[in-house]
Amino acid sequence: MTHADVFMAHALRLAEHGLLTSAPNPAIGCVIVKDGLIIGEGFTQPPGGNHAEIEAINDARVKGHDVRGATAYVTLEPCSHFGRTPPCADALVKAGLVKVIAAMEDPNPQVGGQGFARLRAAGIAVETGVLAEQARELNIGFFSRMQSGKPWVRLKVAASLDGKTALYNGQSQWITSSAARDDGHLWRARAGVILTGIGTVKQDDPQLTVRALEVTRQPLRVIIDSKLGIDINARILRGEPTLIFSAIGNPEKEALLHERGAEVVVLPNAHGKVDLPQVILALGSRQINEIHVEAGAKLNASLIRELCVDELLVYLAPNIIGDARGMFDLPPLDNLQEKFSLKFHQIKQIGEDLRILARFN
Amino acid sequence: MTHADVFMAHALRLAEHGLLTSAPNPAIGCVIVKDGLIIGEGFTQPPGGNHAEIEAINDARVKGHDVRGATAYVTLEPCSHFGRTPPCADALVKAGLVKVIAAMEDPNPQVGGQGFARLRAAGIAVETGVLAEQARELNIGFFSRMQSGKPWVRLKVAASLDGKTALYNGQSQWITSSAARDDGHLWRARAGVILTGIGTVKQDDPQLTVRALEVTRQPLRVIIDSKLGIDINARILRGEPTLIFSAIGNPEKEALLHERGAEVVVLPNAHGKVDLPQVILALGSRQINEIHVEAGAKLNASLIRELCVDELLVYLAPNIIGDARGMFDLPPLDNLQEKFSLKFHQIKQIGEDLRILARFN
Repeated sequence: MTHADVFMAHALRLAEHGLLTSAPNPAIGCVIVKDGLIIGEGFTQPPGGNHAEIEAINDARVKGHDVRGATAYVTLEPCSHFGRTPPCADALVKAGLVKVIAAMEDPNPQVGGQGFARLRAAGIAVETGVLAEQARELNIGFFSRMQSGKPWVRLKVAASLDGKTALYNGQSQWITSSAARDDGHLWRARAGVILTGIGTVKQDDPQLTVRALEVTRQPLRVIIDSKLGIDINARILRGEPTLIFSAIGNPEKEALLHERGAEVVVLPNAHGKVDLPQVILALGSRQINEIHVEAGAKLNASLIRELCVDELLVYLAPNIIGDARGMFDLPPLDNLQEKFSLKFHQIKQIGEDLRILARFN
Repeated sequence: MTHADVFMAHALRLAEHGLLTSAPNPAIGCVIVKDGLIIGEGFTQPPGGNHAEIEAINDARVKGHDVRGATAYVTLEPCSHFGRTPPCADALVKAGLVKVIAAMEDPNPQVGGQGFARLRAAGIAVETGVLAEQARELNIGFFSRMQSGKPWVRLKVAASLDGKTALYNGQSQWITSSAARDDGHLWRARAGVILTGIGTVKQDDPQLTVRALEVTRQPLRVIIDSKLGIDINARILRGEPTLIFSAIGNPEKEALLHERGAEVVVLPNAHGKVDLPQVILALGSRQINEIHVEAGAKLNASLIRELCVDELLVYLAPNIIGDARGMFDLPPLDNLQEKFSLKFHQIKQIGEDLRILARFN
């Protein structure tokens, strides 16, 4: 590791502090370094609050340091546009920094190199490409949305080693361990949306909230319910708002659901089902960066077949169940070449279970 | 790592050289150390040949070293009994070594501490317990057989991430990558037996030989064939000998099979099927250390249900197949508590696939 790597790694750890609160903004970290020492650090505050660079400059000043002549390590190109806050590039110039090292360029078309240009124009040295891959991973949903308009869709499944998620009688608690379930809640928490299907709502009556850790905001719960058949008394309709996508309008039912704080969007495809790719885009235009799917084998399969999933988050438990419900309700293939191909991205043992992140090619 | 660990780790690497050839003996490694330097090294030769200690002493002498006053690092307690070769403990005494450091005690009831006793009686210092766990793993089958009379049974499955091993039309080539298949042949090669069922023989007509690497001996192929329905022209009956377990005698068919170099053993259970636990014991008394199972979902399930499997060797490919054949043809459960519990032992990426070793509790 070079010195730059060490400071950037620190900035990335700071960025992680904002992971559950920064959305729709990316979670960014920044350290201000002078004479080889970190004099200030910061990370993205909740929307409307300071960006990481401003936090780090303020932190340095509060600690009595002079930031003039210092270098900023920041996990993303500083912004150059007026959003809810003024441009960070201008603040860095004004503060008298002499160098900015960014992990990567901002893929946001509103910024795209303009932040760097602004810094260079003011005589500030700019470097980029330090721990870029880690920086990209940390905000993979934000970057996905910036580049394609679509949130990053992560589909979670918990299964036995032989790929079974529940008995035919519905019993599924607990195939995986409590460590895996807690880990799953962390992934829920970083997502902007938890998406499920009417089948799961009817079968399990889940809350789909983050409970294993304390959070200041709950993800929006989204339900795919083509026939708008949801029970008005479902637990998911209590508490925080929900968003229901259906394939048919039903003013009466919609009115009842509105009373429960639920919003209904009618988005049918040609087959009378909810148009799933359009759902993803709709959530993207609502500034959702990451969608966390926890659904049954049917909706899982539809999402995969309609190419709506970027990544699988699979918890495999060290046990064998035998004949039982599978992960994905996909029809039999005639040829193995028709299988869906992925790539293992990360493997980690979580308690006694295995956590597999696999990405579609 | 201590000095002792370093020398023992070297002895373990030497031991691995005998892994495919030492059976029914354990694969042992030995280094002779004098004045902090390795002066001789050896590993178990094929049956009838020298044990590791003799090889190491000879190696030192060939290189012109005087082994008197030296220390031997050996991955198992030296033997004290006359087998096909004279006792190694005596050879170490005779050679004038002053110290023996063994990774672990021999679980073989014919030795069980007697080797150490013999050394101590001759005034040789003895230490044990250095990298014992690695030493045990290396010869897990030998130790299993010594302690329970049963070989170590490793069941191999190659499946998609959703736990599917083949399409309903039988197509299974190739769910996993060539790297995983080559790795699978290495596991075949270290086993004394490759065990399969008549279903796999009929369906795939496999050879079940080691082909991805060069070997000097092929494992014995064992077929579970309750009704003795094997086709006389099956590929598995060509070349090396095979052993067939059936539940019924059939002198005519048996005679035909004998002509093909196959041996038939009739070993029925009360339900008119082959008695699988008895098969395992029978192979143990034939001095088989490790059994490598490559069978279909039916025999896999029977072996698991009858508690005949010690370890699963699962290759998971990064792909999704959907509705297709599963790993284990086990009946539906009423309660998840009836599931089979294992423990993940080792996880490794092999090419683009994942290799999971999981052990039954």
